[in-house]
Amino acid sequence: MTLKRVEPSVFVILGATGDLTKRKLVPALFRLRKYVDPGTRTFVLGVGRKPELDDDAFRAWLKEAVAETGEAEDGIDQWIDQHVRYHCMEETDVSSCRSLGERLGALEEEQDLPGNRSFYLSLPPSRFVPTIEALGESGLAQSPGWTHLVVEKPFGRDLASAQALNRTVHRWYDESQIYRIDHYLGKETVQNLLVFRLANAIFESLWNRSHVESVQILVAEELGVETRAGYYDKTGALRDMVQNHLAQLVSLVAMEVPATIDAESIRYEKIKVLRSMSTPSATDVVFGQYGPGENGSGPDAGYLDEPGVGVASTTETYVSLRLAVDSWRWQGVPFYVRTGKRLPKRLTQIAVTFRQPPVCLFESMGSCLLHSNVLLITLQPDEGFALYFDVKAPGEPLDLRTLPLSFRYEDAFEKIPDAYETLLRDILEGDQTLFVHSDEVEASWKLFEPLLGGDREVHRYPAGSWGPEEATRHFVRGAPETLQPASG
Amino acid sequence: MTLKRVEPSVFVILGATGDLTKRKLVPALFRLRKYVDPGTRTFVLGVGRKPELDDDAFRAWLKEAVAETGEAEDGIDQWIDQHVRYHCMEETDVSSCRSLGERLGALEEEQDLPGNRSFYLSLPPSRFVPTIEALGESGLAQSPGWTHLVVEKPFGRDLASAQALNRTVHRWYDESQIYRIDHYLGKETVQNLLVFRLANAIFESLWNRSHVESVQILVAEELGVETRAGYYDKTGALRDMVQNHLAQLVSLVAMEVPATIDAESIRYEKIKVLRSMSTPSATDVVFGQYGPGENGSGPDAGYLDEPGVGVASTTETYVSLRLAVDSWRWQGVPFYVRTGKRLPKRLTQIAVTFRQPPVCLFESMGSCLLHSNVLLITLQPDEGFALYFDVKAPGEPLDLRTLPLSFRYEDAFEKIPDAYETLLRDILEGDQTLFVHSDEVEASWKLFEPLLGGDREVHRYPAGSWGPEEATRHFVRGAPETLQPASG
Repeated sequence: MTLKRVEPSVFVILGATGDLTKRKLVPALFRLRKYVDPGTRTFVLGVGRKPELDDDAFRAWLKEAVAETGEAEDGIDQWIDQHVRYHCMEETDVSSCRSLGERLGALEEEQDLPGNRSFYLSLPPSRFVPTIEALGESGLAQSPGWTHLVVEKPFGRDLASAQALNRTVHRWYDESQIYRIDHYLGKETVQNLLVFRLANAIFESLWNRSHVESVQILVAEELGVETRAGYYDKTGALRDMVQNHLAQLVSLVAMEVPATIDAESIRYEKIKVLRSMSTPSATDVVFGQYGPGENGSGPDAGYLDEPGVGVASTTETYVSLRLAVDSWRWQGVPFYVRTGKRLPKRLTQIAVTFRQPPVCLFESMGSCLLHSNVLLITLQPDEGFALYFDVKAPGEPLDLRTLPLSFRYEDAFEKIPDAYETLLRDILEGDQTLFVHSDEVEASWKLFEPLLGGDREVHRYPAGSWGPEEATRHFVRGAPETLQPASG
Repeated sequence: MTLKRVEPSVFVILGATGDLTKRKLVPALFRLRKYVDPGTRTFVLGVGRKPELDDDAFRAWLKEAVAETGEAEDGIDQWIDQHVRYHCMEETDVSSCRSLGERLGALEEEQDLPGNRSFYLSLPPSRFVPTIEALGESGLAQSPGWTHLVVEKPFGRDLASAQALNRTVHRWYDESQIYRIDHYLGKETVQNLLVFRLANAIFESLWNRSHVESVQILVAEELGVETRAGYYDKTGALRDMVQNHLAQLVSLVAMEVPATIDAESIRYEKIKVLRSMSTPSATDVVFGQYGPGENGSGPDAGYLDEPGVGVASTTETYVSLRLAVDSWRWQGVPFYVRTGKRLPKRLTQIAVTFRQPPVCLFESMGSCLLHSNVLLITLQPDEGFALYFDVKAPGEPLDLRTLPLSFRYEDAFEKIPDAYETLLRDILEGDQTLFVHSDEVEASWKLFEPLLGGDREVHRYPAGSWGPEEATRHFVRGAPETLQPASG
């Protein structure tokens, strides 16, 4: 995470007329200008298949589209006029890619740029392999400066397709050029987690099987499948959330202290965690699918009634897993991992439950309800920490109460920057820490692929509930009341 | 600290016309009635040497005196009328004590009481020995029920006088009858400290030389000697505060986990701590005396200008000590202990500074200012806990900030009961946990007596400052900024 100088470059968005350009990429690139020398310009070359667009028409569409998202800020229209171009082409075609190369060369000459290029694949997964082949074949994997290839998830649908995608990528690119964006969480959040663990000796001292009883990780979504049913019904929560986001979170929580805080050392430790885990047995997994339910303002449709979902779909919208990290540090400590759609609220939390005191000294005083200390790390939406500990309520008889020592980032600091802002900055700076290594992708698929197929029971849960009862009973037993999701 | 039933009893105050009766004892006994069965009455027999008083005149004085202190509550006047008696006598005289016994017997018969008696010595220290002798000689060390003897500090002026006092006491009383009140802190505060350590496994895990770098204990008084100069000038801070209160605080922080939470086990562990310490060498002690100074609203007189202080007095009003607890748990961890009068504010704090992370991983990110985690326990006036930990400020370059996770009792609970209320309750219930054992008194005198005499330098500090510079330089080096008393 060394702070590097951002150099002038061209940011090529393949699939530029999609949502991501207007919602995230262009607003983030605009905001990034404030971290950069005024002379260091980043140009955006939007690439799409709409022949009716030219530079001006694309800019006009973009300005309007950004304004509609509510992401517009003072000066963004002028910035778009000066920094954005459009190039119409079929991105899987080699000769089209050659013409893209010529266009880039011309832009770089015109603007006196050193030839640094990022290629951002904002494309459906089915187009990843042919596009990467065409870019490579046409010579665009190299440039006079640096070339970074940015790939959005999913990285394959299973181990074989992930390996095939990695093989294609590595045919043309070195791993150091690849930026696999797989971050449910932004850089700030990940850094906060690392700093919390590694800058605070007391927590790192407690961060092991001698002191920790269990770890719970919850990624709850309030939304259903929305407009993504076509994609989601073929994917499911295991592929969409567990294999990537939750695997990342488990890795960050469970990893050893890295040798240094750089991309290579951190990714090495994360891979090591994935390799210390085994595929959970069937009894340690519960799948769920939301049925009809109620939210505060009215009824919610069940998953099977969502437009675009197969009538008898058994796609899971909820997964609960009991994972084991068989390392010296964590052997015997269960990692309870849960994610689901249409849960009561959007919430990403890590709960580290410490072991109870070995002796209940307060029994004679009328109280033997010792609780475990719990460290609750909230990553979304209200980032902060809370350490639950027992205090004595005043008076007699002795009455222990569990209360939090708590801290919210928002109370101490300004708003945390948008995840895309920090991720794009890392791409421009050449910092891969927050991006996923090919070995991570494959280790994670190895772990979770066996759960994809076969006979499996998918338990129904009402939309707006905390998931199927089978999972709640199975995995959350013994959790302190403060961690029951209902009060989370 | 087992909760016991309070039985009907007579509470005898020797020295009843003093300040303590109206300011603390009677208001506390009145408030205690709410914890007790309505049929369980506690009678107060005030004993004094003023022949002009009788029951009615004493009650009239008491009602007025309590009202003046602002401690009056609804119903206290009626309560005084029904429960308070006065007995005029010379308490060091055996035949007077015999007449007191007759008076007590008559009261117990009249009110159908079982003969439980507390004798509270609210007397100058010089009268302790003759009064105890007279009580014993006259047979008042025993009664048809239980008999508790309550002695206020100081317990001797040095080891020899403390031993003499203990010998006198033990001639007539069993140690289980003796309640030595030496509590700067009330029961609630001490219990909070014990619960914090022993009900929260993570803190007890960290509570040792492997994780703790230093412990600081500060008992700061804002007031000067006020009206006590005559007593104080012969006493000094070492006798008045260090030998008793600070020794108690060190013991509570440093003690091993007791076998059970009862008086015997806890006092055993506290004595063990005192016996693990050695008298600090001269280089580890700094004495101070306040000179003239300024407070917010005007000048403060220096100690030597206080009425009643000798012109060339070298009595210390400030002591700073570096103590070592040579136990397996604490060897090598310095305990910095400070107390003084005319400091900037009234404040009792324990700061446990944990060791820094062994490796600074964030150096490459522009930040190697790792701080120690600090647990700050505030006992007075605003009881609570704060755990200082490092978080990352949003943005780049990496910027670590030390912030507290904090908790205040007052935010979570109603007001903590007055120290005297809980102490008197313990006396009536027969709970000695919070009272000092004779072995504790003697172990503490053994430790600190060698510092009383000899040639010693007393450094002047301005009233309203945090003590002599010699002490600040000597003992607080390396303390995190949050613990510098100036910001405390």
